[in-house]
Amino acid sequence: MAVNNIWKGTTMEKYTGEQNSFKNITITGGFWKKKQDLFRGVTMEAVYDRFEETGRFEALKFNWKEGMPNRPHIFWESDVTKWIEGAAYFLQKRRDPLLEEKIDELVGRMERAQEENGYLNAYFTVVEPEARFTRRTDHELYSAGHLIEGAIAYAQATGKNALLRVAVTYADLIDRVFRIEHSAGFDTPGHEEIELALMKLYRYTGEERYKALAEYFINTRGTSERDETYSFTDQEHMQSHLPVRKQLTAEGHSVRALYLYSGMADLAKENKEEDLAGVCEALFDNIVNQRMYITGGVGSTHRGESFSFDYDLPEYTAYNETCASIALALFARRMWLIEADGKYADAAEQAIYNTVLGGISISGDSFFYENPMSVDPRRNAFNDSRPEGLKEHLPILERAKVFGCSCCPPNLLRFVGSIADFMYATSGSTVFTHCYMNGTGTVSIGGREILLEQKTEYPYEGDVQILVKTAGTFTIALRIPGWASAEKAELTVNGEKIVCAPVKGYVYVDRSFAQGDCIHVKLPLETRIVEANPRVSDLCGRAAVVRGPIVFCAEGIDNAYLLRDVRIQRESAVNLERETIGGMEIPVLTMKAWKRKESAVLYSDKPYGEEETQLKLIPYFAWANRGVSEMTTWFLQKDGTGCG
Amino acid sequence: MAVNNIWKGTTMEKYTGEQNSFKNITITGGFWKKKQDLFRGVTMEAVYDRFEETGRFEALKFNWKEGMPNRPHIFWESDVTKWIEGAAYFLQKRRDPLLEEKIDELVGRMERAQEENGYLNAYFTVVEPEARFTRRTDHELYSAGHLIEGAIAYAQATGKNALLRVAVTYADLIDRVFRIEHSAGFDTPGHEEIELALMKLYRYTGEERYKALAEYFINTRGTSERDETYSFTDQEHMQSHLPVRKQLTAEGHSVRALYLYSGMADLAKENKEEDLAGVCEALFDNIVNQRMYITGGVGSTHRGESFSFDYDLPEYTAYNETCASIALALFARRMWLIEADGKYADAAEQAIYNTVLGGISISGDSFFYENPMSVDPRRNAFNDSRPEGLKEHLPILERAKVFGCSCCPPNLLRFVGSIADFMYATSGSTVFTHCYMNGTGTVSIGGREILLEQKTEYPYEGDVQILVKTAGTFTIALRIPGWASAEKAELTVNGEKIVCAPVKGYVYVDRSFAQGDCIHVKLPLETRIVEANPRVSDLCGRAAVVRGPIVFCAEGIDNAYLLRDVRIQRESAVNLERETIGGMEIPVLTMKAWKRKESAVLYSDKPYGEEETQLKLIPYFAWANRGVSEMTTWFLQKDGTGCG
Repeated sequence: MAVNNIWKGTTMEKYTGEQNSFKNITITGGFWKKKQDLFRGVTMEAVYDRFEETGRFEALKFNWKEGMPNRPHIFWESDVTKWIEGAAYFLQKRRDPLLEEKIDELVGRMERAQEENGYLNAYFTVVEPEARFTRRTDHELYSAGHLIEGAIAYAQATGKNALLRVAVTYADLIDRVFRIEHSAGFDTPGHEEIELALMKLYRYTGEERYKALAEYFINTRGTSERDETYSFTDQEHMQSHLPVRKQLTAEGHSVRALYLYSGMADLAKENKEEDLAGVCEALFDNIVNQRMYITGGVGSTHRGESFSFDYDLPEYTAYNETCASIALALFARRMWLIEADGKYADAAEQAIYNTVLGGISISGDSFFYENPMSVDPRRNAFNDSRPEGLKEHLPILERAKVFGCSCCPPNLLRFVGSIADFMYATSGSTVFTHCYMNGTGTVSIGGREILLEQKTEYPYEGDVQILVKTAGTFTIALRIPGWASAEKAELTVNGEKIVCAPVKGYVYVDRSFAQGDCIHVKLPLETRIVEANPRVSDLCGRAAVVRGPIVFCAEGIDNAYLLRDVRIQRESAVNLERETIGGMEIPVLTMKAWKRKESAVLYSDKPYGEEETQLKLIPYFAWANRGVSEMTTWFLQKDGTGCG
Repeated sequence: MAVNNIWKGTTMEKYTGEQNSFKNITITGGFWKKKQDLFRGVTMEAVYDRFEETGRFEALKFNWKEGMPNRPHIFWESDVTKWIEGAAYFLQKRRDPLLEEKIDELVGRMERAQEENGYLNAYFTVVEPEARFTRRTDHELYSAGHLIEGAIAYAQATGKNALLRVAVTYADLIDRVFRIEHSAGFDTPGHEEIELALMKLYRYTGEERYKALAEYFINTRGTSERDETYSFTDQEHMQSHLPVRKQLTAEGHSVRALYLYSGMADLAKENKEEDLAGVCEALFDNIVNQRMYITGGVGSTHRGESFSFDYDLPEYTAYNETCASIALALFARRMWLIEADGKYADAAEQAIYNTVLGGISISGDSFFYENPMSVDPRRNAFNDSRPEGLKEHLPILERAKVFGCSCCPPNLLRFVGSIADFMYATSGSTVFTHCYMNGTGTVSIGGREILLEQKTEYPYEGDVQILVKTAGTFTIALRIPGWASAEKAELTVNGEKIVCAPVKGYVYVDRSFAQGDCIHVKLPLETRIVEANPRVSDLCGRAAVVRGPIVFCAEGIDNAYLLRDVRIQRESAVNLERETIGGMEIPVLTMKAWKRKESAVLYSDKPYGEEETQLKLIPYFAWANRGVSEMTTWFLQKDGTGCG
């Protein structure tokens, strides 16, 4: 059988990655079907209801006056339009008149509220109209970005263009004020997001000026003396400490950074700018090689919700905003259109299957903004007992229904609604299978639609079957995740074995496919004991338990002893079972572990003595669904060094 | 040979511990002679000069006016009188006209500044006279306490009573205002200290009213509705959340707490109040069994400079104020007058030989206020690079010459000046040898002065010789430290072996001593590998290296690799040598250790690989004397569990 593992090259001339939209794909079963059903059935409405209750929709009437409750917030529109975007992704798959009615009502309010010149922001209309476009720190352009994304999504899903008209009119105003007239009080957004939204608008409308505006914002960043920052922080916080092309380490507010990098990747791709692509890769590498938690969490400190320094990955105070991991996945997805390297999909899955999904409860209606690696309820209890002035910042222990700054819930909605964006991309006559999911749909190669049917229980199981439903000669590049041993992975086409020798994470299967050909990928989903780099001082001596892309953790509710002191052994057999938590079936691991005996002595030069015990582990994303208890992700190693 | 290990009983009727003052003892050599020479030769003047430069002495002229530099601070007098107290302890041993001239000048200023009614506080005279005795949070009584202690010390050393008159007059005013008239704006001090000072004044003058006032302050604490706290904190911060007799855990600001407990112990002892003594013991036990670092550091959080919760002993953010460990030693010294239990001297030595001495540089002129267990200069560098609003609180990496709040430097001076207070105590016809030091002097038994000469290089060596220079029948209770294996300790009298079977830490040698009898204590000064209780989550998997009372640490300057990742083995041979740092000879340990290989990979399911290396350790108190580098006290264990 002919198998060509052809390295397709990374130069932007040779490799022309194209996104295959989720619109072409229907998630038909497996892990993501259940998630999408939950999001469609529960999350969408739960977020809507919380936004309703907190006045975010009422604010769109622009009739708030001093003394009234629910004063509009500078970025409330972004919450609304992100929710619309999420809802639209579900409407894309199944229209729903009642849901559309709700959205149309909101769109109507925005239409009516929008000013003649296109301006649209409740806070800067009813609270501080005089401050409009003068305070860089105040998220007007961030909100505009989400408006653009929501509007495109709703137009695509329904053909209704009212919101798109609102967005375009506003974008045109922003283009004039910022790029053409320079009449605003600052030059680039304090909170990035509009860059990637403008690139999307450019692609959707074909209007060059939106790309020009995105380009203007990206290229001006870090060069303008008019660009202020918060009084308590620095230009790094807003990625304005250097021109973006000189930024080679990920700094400042992590969500802002990753939205910016996403926009930069869009621009690099669009303009085939290799230098800018190189900067994006350097930033990506800095994140995943020095600044990312094993759960794909980023932004290790709550101080500025920001990146800190290389190898600084504290466990209890890990900030790891849910939105930051969403943004990391979005950035990675853009990067794989620039370069065919499995490291991007690896990072995307690390983020998605751990921190992103950990950001929402199994019930679908409660959310984490922060995603720590360990929690100690004693520490929270002490902290809670302290007066305000002596409290430290600690992550909460149970998910909340809504936050004052509630960006994460609608972000999750739109992310899961469009999750199939992560399945396929193409370059020339190659179809890349990036993230395996159970779904059916088409990818376009040379103007021809190829129907592919993917069947898998990934990430719980390692088997993936891809049925080629359209005959043709093309290449399918199968991703072999970085965590999978290529020697143990098995690939077959119609039962015939293919050598699994991935090139930068992909095995290229190049052939003339007959209709019904079946590609079978068997990934070795073994439990792995993973250590962090010796430079990660917080994790020295510890190891995590990982299976496929899923990081496991232990909770006190399952393990009635001191989790921080438990020790595991690399060689231990691991037992895999399924268990149902809150109606959701999850994989559960059990393994032998050891712990020291409890004692009244604070310090001892005699060993405290050791006892064998069982350690029960659940996926990190499933923690905190059964009340408050201790949780940890990194365990001591019985064999100290773990150096084998 | 007759040896009676008689348990002398702990009830306050049977056991009547009496302090043997440092005044009776001269430190003649060994560890403390060098320290006292340094403090007399360098520290005393260095602290004086810094206080001079910062206006603390000028402020005593009480002529500051708005617009002038160096506005007096609410507790500047306490810095001055604590320095006088320290200087007086050295004068006690050797008069010095030039030094006394300096002190007399300061005393003169205070005499002239004191008001007719006795009031004395620069801030509340020249800055806010109207607020006098109205703000509990503002340290007036704390300063008065230190004035009393300084005045007694100076009077005892020189026979000059001018400062004592000032102190007594002020104490009388405080007695009237607080105890008799209740005319102040609050009832008990926000920062304790005066309680123990009043007990000292009572003992020195014999005036019952000072004890009554101490008693009033102690008994009223936690019962008054007029006792406010800082707006940012709570009553726990000032140990006012409960009546003191109901306080069984150490809470709030650690220095305040330990000064209070010291005063409570004084009162319990004086009044033979067993209930109060029991409370003191419960507080002590809570500290040493749940809340104390291995270095005798206490007050684990900078938030409120306070105790936190049981087993919360973080390494990098350990606050461990130098003054808190001094106060812990002072409290322990009072407790051994209530109960003959070696746990008190054990804790005192843990504090003294680690955190207290770590609070000052080997050069004698620079100080730490905070004493962390580990430092990572990368973390400090990142933090230093951040804008003010995003900084975290981190301990400094190099000792400072003076602080805005510079309580620790003069506290060290007075503490080291009177260190021989820790040598002996008596009860009936028993002499207790608590902390071994090289010194000669008398203890009083039944009105008879017994001359004892102690020769030792403790804590660097375990041999102690005690020469009885006065014949008589009495008991010498020899402390066998908790860390010492009684089986390996050797005791002889004139070469004849005594069974070492300590009762609560003491071996009672009861006999008719002839002049010249020589007691020889040989303590097994082995290097010990010490683990912390499994509940100390920050220390799970780690061990400390301890020799006698001295905790060792490793610095980057001696060990060119990642200290956090180094692993030691309980069984390793430890090599002991002497090395000179900044003119001071210190013991240095070297032992085999292991570390993982460096790597570019952030996470790996394959072991990073192990290398053998040498670990060089110095006493914790000697760290940060050779520039900035990484430091750690707790090392990973090669054999994971360390469970033997």
